[in-house]
Amino acid sequence: MLQLKNVIACIFLITVSFCQLNAQHKIEQWDYFEISLKGTKSGNPFTDVKLSAEIRHADKTVTVHGFYDGEGVYKIRFMPDRKGRWSYVTSSNRKELNGKKGKFEAVAATEGNNGPVVVKNQYHFSYSNNKPYLPLGTTCYAWLHQDEKLQEQTLQTLKESPFNKLRMTVFPKYFDYNRAEPQLYPYVKKADGSWDFTRFNPAFFRNIEKRVKDLQALNIEADIILFHPYDKGHWGFDQMPREASLHYLNYVVARLSAFRNVWWSMANEFDLMKHKSLEDWESYFALIQEKDPYKHLASIHNGDINVLYDHSKPYITHVSVQSPNLKEAISWRKFGKPVINDECEYEGNLPMPWGNISGEELVHRAWQGYGYGIYVGHSESFEDNVIWWSHGGELKGESAARFAFLKQVMQETSPEGLDVFEPDNWLWLRFAAAKGDSAFVYYFGEHQPARWHFIHGKKTAEYSVDVIDTWNMTINKVEGKFKNGDSIPLPGKPNIALRLMEIKDRAGAQ
Amino acid sequence: MLQLKNVIACIFLITVSFCQLNAQHKIEQWDYFEISLKGTKSGNPFTDVKLSAEIRHADKTVTVHGFYDGEGVYKIRFMPDRKGRWSYVTSSNRKELNGKKGKFEAVAATEGNNGPVVVKNQYHFSYSNNKPYLPLGTTCYAWLHQDEKLQEQTLQTLKESPFNKLRMTVFPKYFDYNRAEPQLYPYVKKADGSWDFTRFNPAFFRNIEKRVKDLQALNIEADIILFHPYDKGHWGFDQMPREASLHYLNYVVARLSAFRNVWWSMANEFDLMKHKSLEDWESYFALIQEKDPYKHLASIHNGDINVLYDHSKPYITHVSVQSPNLKEAISWRKFGKPVINDECEYEGNLPMPWGNISGEELVHRAWQGYGYGIYVGHSESFEDNVIWWSHGGELKGESAARFAFLKQVMQETSPEGLDVFEPDNWLWLRFAAAKGDSAFVYYFGEHQPARWHFIHGKKTAEYSVDVIDTWNMTINKVEGKFKNGDSIPLPGKPNIALRLMEIKDRAGAQ
Repeated sequence: MLQLKNVIACIFLITVSFCQLNAQHKIEQWDYFEISLKGTKSGNPFTDVKLSAEIRHADKTVTVHGFYDGEGVYKIRFMPDRKGRWSYVTSSNRKELNGKKGKFEAVAATEGNNGPVVVKNQYHFSYSNNKPYLPLGTTCYAWLHQDEKLQEQTLQTLKESPFNKLRMTVFPKYFDYNRAEPQLYPYVKKADGSWDFTRFNPAFFRNIEKRVKDLQALNIEADIILFHPYDKGHWGFDQMPREASLHYLNYVVARLSAFRNVWWSMANEFDLMKHKSLEDWESYFALIQEKDPYKHLASIHNGDINVLYDHSKPYITHVSVQSPNLKEAISWRKFGKPVINDECEYEGNLPMPWGNISGEELVHRAWQGYGYGIYVGHSESFEDNVIWWSHGGELKGESAARFAFLKQVMQETSPEGLDVFEPDNWLWLRFAAAKGDSAFVYYFGEHQPARWHFIHGKKTAEYSVDVIDTWNMTINKVEGKFKNGDSIPLPGKPNIALRLMEIKDRAGAQ
Repeated sequence: MLQLKNVIACIFLITVSFCQLNAQHKIEQWDYFEISLKGTKSGNPFTDVKLSAEIRHADKTVTVHGFYDGEGVYKIRFMPDRKGRWSYVTSSNRKELNGKKGKFEAVAATEGNNGPVVVKNQYHFSYSNNKPYLPLGTTCYAWLHQDEKLQEQTLQTLKESPFNKLRMTVFPKYFDYNRAEPQLYPYVKKADGSWDFTRFNPAFFRNIEKRVKDLQALNIEADIILFHPYDKGHWGFDQMPREASLHYLNYVVARLSAFRNVWWSMANEFDLMKHKSLEDWESYFALIQEKDPYKHLASIHNGDINVLYDHSKPYITHVSVQSPNLKEAISWRKFGKPVINDECEYEGNLPMPWGNISGEELVHRAWQGYGYGIYVGHSESFEDNVIWWSHGGELKGESAARFAFLKQVMQETSPEGLDVFEPDNWLWLRFAAAKGDSAFVYYFGEHQPARWHFIHGKKTAEYSVDVIDTWNMTINKVEGKFKNGDSIPLPGKPNIALRLMEIKDRAGAQ
């Protein structure tokens, strides 16, 4: 008995150990593998130590850069973009970090892991596994810099919201309504009390990573704003010399790029950062291009609504716009890339016009964007100690529920998005219209026709018609089948969308 | 007795005759004097006969062209721009019309006769007697071409409306909802049934004159549209050769320019008249410049909202714009002239977007215009047999009452109009703000701040504050006196205007 018991115990231990070993070496595709090494704490590990790894698959080799995580710990993170066996070998100017080898296996992604979002069909997005992704973002710029409890509340609010992208800054924010010092700082200080831009504070970045992973668990993309002007020398993070900025970008990319839900927003209101030149921005993008092996989505957001960055640059994957004037959407599409208007002004009541439009107006603009084949972001800014736009917390406005309704309509109408047809038609300077594979959406906005003469359909198709009240969130089916040339009755009131869906036979073919 | 009776009768007759004689020779300043002469009916009097008059005052000499009014009657009309004695002598290539002399006296204008409207203070207007004129126009394009009863109804509606300018076409209109033939045509036909562009139909023009005078009696300016594209060859009045167009303009100017309430709108949607070149338009304006002795206000209205005529041309007195995008108003002011947005889309429910915005939206745009120091026109287009926008008739919408309210606010706030201050301030790309001599108006539109930080006032002045609900037509005074730097509470809802009026002491000085 005793012997048998020992044998069983032994088998049990072996099994557990094997499973643990196995668990360490298997990750899901698009999850991340982390190599953790012990090294020196002396000198300035952030600048003195070079560390990278060559990571190989049958089909490809990737070079990934490591980073110093404090306390003598060095890490390299890697997100496999395909299933199968991977191996790695490290390179370093430090013997103890050099030539380390290992293997792991990337296995099939499970439910909820769809990989990074990528550009699809020129003007749209999908996850890497081809599942459609229709961006519906919101903004809590400085939520990472609030206290733990508020961060948790923000996550809870996001969980119950329709939003699947969040704009957030790496650096803390010093601005109206944002005068509190953050919980953590990105740098440590020198003896003279000034910031040491060569020495990062790993705890600051670990918090960002934790929150990026929290967002990942909620299927929310983290639109990470790398620079912003809301500092004005208070800390000086907006005015670092180019070398310090590149050092910072190296560190951020090394730490964060293995998270599949990361997007790079190079700056918020780049044109308001008067200390930075076009050459600076280009050098930053060049670094990201070089060091981010996954080529995460990358863009840059304007301040002056008439000063867009040149989004035709090859390093920019999609157009990020601040503008309240959605009727210009077709012009933004002329860059030939997906367009996200991140900031068409927020629902709220602040004195500043970017933060005080009515819920109706924000919902109107979101629908305009939808009708022009672009994507519009949400946020809220009701005057209070805690304001969603920057701090997170709770939603108080009327628009979020309508964004949820819009999301439902978007998903059921054309999960791959809509595209403008006849982009030079004068009508679309007046109101929005776009089509999907087998659907047309006209969003009339402030226009209130009593009928619509439908002339854009296929000559041979029949369409079902829905009249959508975008504010009251109703979808009323119009009786009958409609075809090209038909006149469709409408309620003659504002904020109505008209949707026509091609009627296919039961087999799905026409 | 008998003798006395005869003497009295004689005195009476002499008095009557003298008065009649006197009446014939006295007109009000800015009224018109008409010389009527009998001449030939033979040949083509419209082309064969040249007739003009030199009309002299102590201070000036004016050359005025006559016109053939049919039935052997030739007329010359003249509007004196100053009081005093005037004399004339005619010139003609016909002996019976040549060398006719006469005199008349221009006396002081009476109540309601303020003379022609002119440009004042660069961006605004006044009557010639300096009385402020704040244009608040509406449009009934083809009302002159409807039946008598409808024309009378239109006048009655205008009488009860706040509008003081009316856009109207000379030529009849052939367009959606406008397929009926007009009561009268501008030309007579040739034997082959085609229009004879050399022979006018005087009855057609007499009706226009009658209606221009009817409008004058209502203190409404007649914004006369000389060409328009809504014909497309149905009659061909849009496609006449340049010579015929100039012949037409000569005739119209000779007939109409002596009416003080005439404005020349060279065309509606000039850019949609593909048969006309820039040279054509310039030749037309050159003719008007030469032949209109009074230099009535003159402009030209675009079709494509992105194709404005070059309003910097010296022959254009004010900017006439079609555009729904009122936030571009500051750019229209860059021509350095008064701006009238004649067509920011109409309240209605037609399928076409220019004719189906909500009343709320039209009122919003009118207030935006006011807040940007420009002027916005009204019209209505609810689908029916009779539509105000073209036919006249009755008003059915909700905006006209709000235009009356706006007019009241305009008059009491700053009768000489408002001007944009800090035109490059980014705020005014978001909402409208302008100031008058001693008033500030902020129109927040879709913005709904809960308070406004007032920083544009004079450092030493105090202001009374009104919160204006532009849709509900209420003016709520905020208790207290406000000065620069103060925060002003606002209701935090859309479509609010904030007005600050400088408080002057009782003597009117500060």
